[in-house]
Amino acid sequence: MKKIAIFPGSFDPFTNGHRNIVLRGLRLFDQIIIGIGHNSKKKRYFDLEEMIELISSSFKGYDNISVITYDELTADLAKKLGANYLLRGLRNTTDFEYENSIAQVNKHLNNDLESVFLITSPEFASVSSSIIREIHRYGADISGFVPYKI
Amino acid sequence: MKKIAIFPGSFDPFTNGHRNIVLRGLRLFDQIIIGIGHNSKKKRYFDLEEMIELISSSFKGYDNISVITYDELTADLAKKLGANYLLRGLRNTTDFEYENSIAQVNKHLNNDLESVFLITSPEFASVSSSIIREIHRYGADISGFVPYKI
Amino acid sequence: MKKIAIFPGSFDPFTNGHRNIVLRGLRLFDQIIIGIGHNSKKKRYFDLEEMIELISSSFKGYDNISVITYDELTADLAKKLGANYLLRGLRNTTDFEYENSIAQVNKHLNNDLESVFLITSPEFASVSSSIIREIHRYGADISGFVPYKI
Amino acid sequence: MKKIAIFPGSFDPFTNGHRNIVLRGLRLFDQIIIGIGHNSKKKRYFDLEEMIELISSSFKGYDNISVITYDELTADLAKKLGANYLLRGLRNTTDFEYENSIAQVNKHLNNDLESVFLITSPEFASVSSSIIREIHRYGADISGFVPYKI
Amino acid sequence: MKKIAIFPGSFDPFTNGHRNIVLRGLRLFDQIIIGIGHNSKKKRYFDLEEMIELISSSFKGYDNISVITYDELTADLAKKLGANYLLRGLRNTTDFEYENSIAQVNKHLNNDLESVFLITSPEFASVSSSIIREIHRYGADISGFVPYKI
Amino acid sequence: MKKIAIFPGSFDPFTNGHRNIVLRGLRLFDQIIIGIGHNSKKKRYFDLEEMIELISSSFKGYDNISVITYDELTADLAKKLGANYLLRGLRNTTDFEYENSIAQVNKHLNNDLESVFLITSPEFASVSSSIIREIHRYGADISGFVPYKI
Repeated sequence: MKKIAIFPGSFDPFTNGHRNIVLRGLRLFDQIIIGIGHNSKKKRYFDLEEMIELISSSFKGYDNISVITYDELTADLAKKLGANYLLRGLRNTTDFEYENSIAQVNKHLNNDLESVFLITSPEFASVSSSIIREIHRYGADISGFVPYKI
Repeated sequence: MKKIAIFPGSFDPFTNGHRNIVLRGLRLFDQIIIGIGHNSKKKRYFDLEEMIELISSSFKGYDNISVITYDELTADLAKKLGANYLLRGLRNTTDFEYENSIAQVNKHLNNDLESVFLITSPEFASVSSSIIREIHRYGADISGFVPYKI
Repeated sequence: MKKIAIFPGSFDPFTNGHRNIVLRGLRLFDQIIIGIGHNSKKKRYFDLEEMIELISSSFKGYDNISVITYDELTADLAKKLGANYLLRGLRNTTDFEYENSIAQVNKHLNNDLESVFLITSPEFASVSSSIIREIHRYGADISGFVPYKI
Repeated sequence: MKKIAIFPGSFDPFTNGHRNIVLRGLRLFDQIIIGIGHNSKKKRYFDLEEMIELISSSFKGYDNISVITYDELTADLAKKLGANYLLRGLRNTTDFEYENSIAQVNKHLNNDLESVFLITSPEFASVSSSIIREIHRYGADISGFVPYKI
Repeated sequence: MKKIAIFPGSFDPFTNGHRNIVLRGLRLFDQIIIGIGHNSKKKRYFDLEEMIELISSSFKGYDNISVITYDELTADLAKKLGANYLLRGLRNTTDFEYENSIAQVNKHLNNDLESVFLITSPEFASVSSSIIREIHRYGADISGFVPYKI
Repeated sequence: MKKIAIFPGSFDPFTNGHRNIVLRGLRLFDQIIIGIGHNSKKKRYFDLEEMIELISSSFKGYDNISVITYDELTADLAKKLGANYLLRGLRNTTDFEYENSIAQVNKHLNNDLESVFLITSPEFASVSSSIIREIHRYGADISGFVPYKI
């Protein structure tokens, strides 16, 4: 059976750290679906359509990586897509405590769903999406933090 | 002297984990007052009146457990109610760092007030109120996470 | 029913931080038994008999505090003594992760046993028994860290 | 070369813990610039002009401590002011994980910028600006937490 | 290509938590080799030969799970066995900080080696091998913590 | 007044991470004394005399960096050497909790002593002395982890 994983997040924006996890995840999964969680009430900083475009273009040539948006529980999305795995990156202990909670709840909601963790490579671990937004807001160059031109 | 404890929180909503702490707290205290901190500016997800009702009904038969709302400092509420203890659950290290700060400040504000901690049972530790709100928002069943029908 | 708590540890040596927890614990429990876990194979730095003496003398006048040594599982000791509570201090997140494990296992071994936590007051939180041993080893004065002359 | 450090923050309000770090920082740096990050879109609880005044007055007599506001990246401010150091206080592990990220990103943005950390003294470590706002909101006395009358 | 993972540890003893990780790991890997790190200078509590036997018997019927001992760097063992993955369980933040270090070093030693993490299920997360040894030492029943009779 | 800092540790062995902290510390201090804590009862893995030699040679040309061994409290050594600062690196939250305790105790023992922290650069943060010993024990190459040939 094909191993399909969802890599869920807001990706506002998608970072080099996210890319690091996805590429390493390809060694575990046959297909990785980057799922941008979004609903109309949550305001984004980076435009959703543009972000889909940027992420997709940055993985050009990878047939087994796709990008979608969704507005439902991740556990439900997984069922619908036949994905039995969630792929997540861990950067530090704050991430760990958060991910630990989410993983148990997702298991409760969808017993077939296994959360699989990779530790973000040290050179990428410090950069969060929220820091990048802050930098971009002040007009500084963020090209060192993201895998595309923006 | 009767040992009265306040179990303070927003309880938006009250969870099985909260209930676990209250029931275990009964082994330490003669009376536990569940105090729902609320002020008109903070928007709740679950209706306040309904939540009071649901919590109360879930402890029917327990004469020593009551539910109130308050809009003042917890340290002041405690003085007013003659409560010398705050009961708190700890789920993980993020909780611990937060509770550590709050406990010291409460002690400063009301020197008679002792913060007492129980560690949430593992089967409940992953479920926070904010995760339950997220699940409910998408119309999924939350009955496995709360001690009442909603 | 009398509320009896065990305050277990190696107490090599017993510190001001330990004393802080015991005295605050008296507001929760009718009787606190300071249990020095010891077996003949574990080498102590401070003499066991002397430590019992020093702790006892430092609580002179407190009829509800006693000191014992034991060489069995804490969960078993509790059953034998009719103690339904373990009293523990938390200093930081490293303590929390350790105590979390121990508390769940003790519950498994003795379902009546409730672990109750107080957060060590900030002025005492930095001082561990192992640091005091290190200081004493070099002949420096440790009287600022322990509630007795040594 | 003169060692100039920026002590950046929102300081809403400036606390005794902040003052503790600044004064200890004087042993490392020739000049410390307290930089209140602010932009017109972020709403403050305490008035910005009043806070500048209060902080300044609390350091009267210290020629090497000044207070400014800024609305740009801290890394850029540092370049402009010829400051090669950021001074930061650490209170607990949650602070550490956050500061770790920020420090690496600042280094990336300005390679000459060194982040230097002192651990907040235990008696001040529990009090955050957000807790003080909460206390003030309810009309309680905050004079025990800040180095000025308000 | 067959996905082979090593699940390394001392397993003194192998616990229900370890078993939980191995079984869930089967959803990711075609073959899992439980590698008991051991050298003659490290004293074990549980006999090595007996532990190999107990673990093996507890996975009877699983053709894709085997048990070996090794006395070399895990990164070197992996090369020799053609294993490109290390499987590890995370129980809490203390584990995370330790595993984070080990994972980066293993990557440095063997660039093809990917460390993959699952979070130990809450019901097993509290039980460490060292706690079980302590319980066993006092003659208490450990059958609730391990997947075999001992 | 000259700013003299001690960089204390066992340095068994001294790593690239240690070197990173010392060199960055030169931007804060006029002189850094690398103090290898050692007493005859603690067995080292790497020979003490050889380690002094290796560290010294790796800082050849730096007049303001020296290497000593000591067998007393660090707080006492500092007084004797006229050093008012301890320089320490922080790699993660486990380090932080440990260093927090030590720093408060050192302050208690020597009120003039300020502990100053830098966060270890991510590329070095994973490598501890104990991991290097483990690698060396198995005859693998450790030259990527230390600033000298061994």
